[in-house]
Amino acid sequence: MSDLETLVLDCARRARTAAHELAVATRASKDTALHAMADALVAHQDAILAANAEDVQRARDNGTPESLVDRLRLDEGRVAGMAQGLRDVAGLADPVGEVLRGSTLANGLELRQVRAPFGVVGIIYEARPNVTADAAGICLKSGNAALLRGSTSALASNRAIVEALRGAVQASGLPADAVQLVPGEGHDAAKVLMRARGLVDVLVPRGGGGLIRSVVEESTVPVIETGVGNCHVYVDAEADLDMALAIVLNAKTHRPSVCNAAESLLVHADVAEEFVPRVVAALQDAGVTVHGDERFAAQEGVEPATEADFDTEYLSLDISAAVVPSLEDAVAHIRRHSSGHTEAIVTRSQAAARRFVAAVDSAAVMVNASTRFTDGGEFGFGAEIGISTQKLHARGPMGLPEMTSSKYVVTGDGHVR
Amino acid sequence: MSDLETLVLDCARRARTAAHELAVATRASKDTALHAMADALVAHQDAILAANAEDVQRARDNGTPESLVDRLRLDEGRVAGMAQGLRDVAGLADPVGEVLRGSTLANGLELRQVRAPFGVVGIIYEARPNVTADAAGICLKSGNAALLRGSTSALASNRAIVEALRGAVQASGLPADAVQLVPGEGHDAAKVLMRARGLVDVLVPRGGGGLIRSVVEESTVPVIETGVGNCHVYVDAEADLDMALAIVLNAKTHRPSVCNAAESLLVHADVAEEFVPRVVAALQDAGVTVHGDERFAAQEGVEPATEADFDTEYLSLDISAAVVPSLEDAVAHIRRHSSGHTEAIVTRSQAAARRFVAAVDSAAVMVNASTRFTDGGEFGFGAEIGISTQKLHARGPMGLPEMTSSKYVVTGDGHVR
Repeated sequence: MSDLETLVLDCARRARTAAHELAVATRASKDTALHAMADALVAHQDAILAANAEDVQRARDNGTPESLVDRLRLDEGRVAGMAQGLRDVAGLADPVGEVLRGSTLANGLELRQVRAPFGVVGIIYEARPNVTADAAGICLKSGNAALLRGSTSALASNRAIVEALRGAVQASGLPADAVQLVPGEGHDAAKVLMRARGLVDVLVPRGGGGLIRSVVEESTVPVIETGVGNCHVYVDAEADLDMALAIVLNAKTHRPSVCNAAESLLVHADVAEEFVPRVVAALQDAGVTVHGDERFAAQEGVEPATEADFDTEYLSLDISAAVVPSLEDAVAHIRRHSSGHTEAIVTRSQAAARRFVAAVDSAAVMVNASTRFTDGGEFGFGAEIGISTQKLHARGPMGLPEMTSSKYVVTGDGHVR
Repeated sequence: MSDLETLVLDCARRARTAAHELAVATRASKDTALHAMADALVAHQDAILAANAEDVQRARDNGTPESLVDRLRLDEGRVAGMAQGLRDVAGLADPVGEVLRGSTLANGLELRQVRAPFGVVGIIYEARPNVTADAAGICLKSGNAALLRGSTSALASNRAIVEALRGAVQASGLPADAVQLVPGEGHDAAKVLMRARGLVDVLVPRGGGGLIRSVVEESTVPVIETGVGNCHVYVDAEADLDMALAIVLNAKTHRPSVCNAAESLLVHADVAEEFVPRVVAALQDAGVTVHGDERFAAQEGVEPATEADFDTEYLSLDISAAVVPSLEDAVAHIRRHSSGHTEAIVTRSQAAARRFVAAVDSAAVMVNASTRFTDGGEFGFGAEIGISTQKLHARGPMGLPEMTSSKYVVTGDGHVR
């Protein structure tokens, strides 16, 4: 066993021990710890910002693009935001102990299915250091010990944040090892986590498609896949075209770099003659490059789309676009190309909406609303660890309840079969 | 790509197409199909029994132990049982469409989280051919297309059963490819399923520990791990010892070959002097070999236990046994050795029961009841695809609801951010 493997597995074992304490911690003690964690971030702000300045300098020296440097950068406002996030989590209901199902069986046995923590949760994520505090807070509130594996580019920031958080957890009477930064550089430490079946209960990768695919491929620990979004807006024959225009523009341009932004537009042939020129002009006015099929490419400035365009999550001011002869063809197109995150239909027809909702197999289906609403905050969950695009366990925005398992508690008075 | 790989992936693609139809099938049409499937098993009974006789003969020729031959054997009663199982599933509520969560957001968006099928479910299982009908019925009712990969030893039986079922599904207006037997012999076809990420949504291995481990290790498709049970009974200092005796005997001897049978007994030191001789005598009278620690091994006929004994799922008339100085030591022992299936405490103390329930991290925790109650039938679920021992998605007995995912349906009237 390599030194790194030993180090990472030792972390995981300490997390397991901490998880036993966390599993039986009361809501009150967890909320006390969360407030202490928030206070500690503010109290240690200077150290955190100094460490972050190191990471930013190193990123610039390595020629990192300024947009990524911006994700890495912390300032007073962002530290305050992390602290507020922890206080918000303290204000949410404790998922642990919630009774999901309960009955008294014919033989008198009392059956209760109760939410219980997973135990040890590994989070593998990319540059944003604020994820460190968010993930630690969500894990702690849901009774899980967190093994945080951030990117090497944010190592100094993450160390400073975790040091502050661990001190606060310990001072409030819970085990410091409830929050740990996994040691080592590069991909090797993450690989050890992925093979630590039995020590780590769940892995949540957060980041780009490449990171998520590699975790899914290599992990023997159960994974919750998050966040790749090739989201579609379908404008039906019966759409209100003004509404459709507003939804397409919002879904594409409101924040193009996020997973719930629209990447593809489908327009029913019956409204194409009127809608295609309008939507192309409006998108181009907003700085969007349209990659269109033949019907769209007849408009000036539209790039001809390849099959690959329809599979692309641009995360930029680009959109693929096609005219479809029917709702069924729109559904078939979505089945072929979607990543299963969010699809929207714009229609006045109740029948079309019902058919689209039933036939489209994605984490979220929007009727007359922007794809941008698929979000834990918008859904009112109060905290979000990511958006699951898999079908097992959790699908769509994941809040505190999605960070738990359950167990059956069965009580009798000497029952035998 | 090998010929087998092509064949298996073609099956999976046909299953995907069938799944699109199944996802929108009404409960009425699914129940009609389930009754037709039951009728077809009875109508094709002669062909099924003839095929089964071939399998049984081949197994005997290969020197298969008679206990395994018995699992493989079908007769009129067992075929009638399979048919009744399908009718029972028809009588259960349809999980698809159940609203799990719903609210109207502050901005007027209507949010609904609704149960939806997984899509394509692969079941990999061992000798019992009745699993073929059970799994097909549960998958169909939950709106999933089933890819059934039974063992080669039951191939003729499984073919005859699936032929009957497919004809009935088709005749009732649903796609025959909702139920398919995966072609090929041996482990290779199962391996193709395990790598068919994107075509197969979930794999459920049912069988021995070796089969389940290999699926968990090799699969990139999400897996629901089932059924390995190293179950403990802990007799507390405050136990009613008559009740404890009855529960230990029932948990060990009622049906020793199943996953919810007890495999290990822990006795609090305060009651050891009285209880150890009593329980050893009773177990020995029932034909059980006790593998005990020092305290137990002082009794005549008790075999000295090794550390390996405490990790063994015997599935036979054997039990490991130890005296523990405290409830906390019992919990620590269980954490070290349990497979996370079911543990029981026998106690009159409310405090001991609460502590045991909170600290033990298993799919089911019994208070003053036999471990044998962890079962979909006993829990009143009406049908069971297996008992999950993992923490992701489903834990404990899995009924119809556990065979579904969910999706969010969000309805607005032109909402944008």
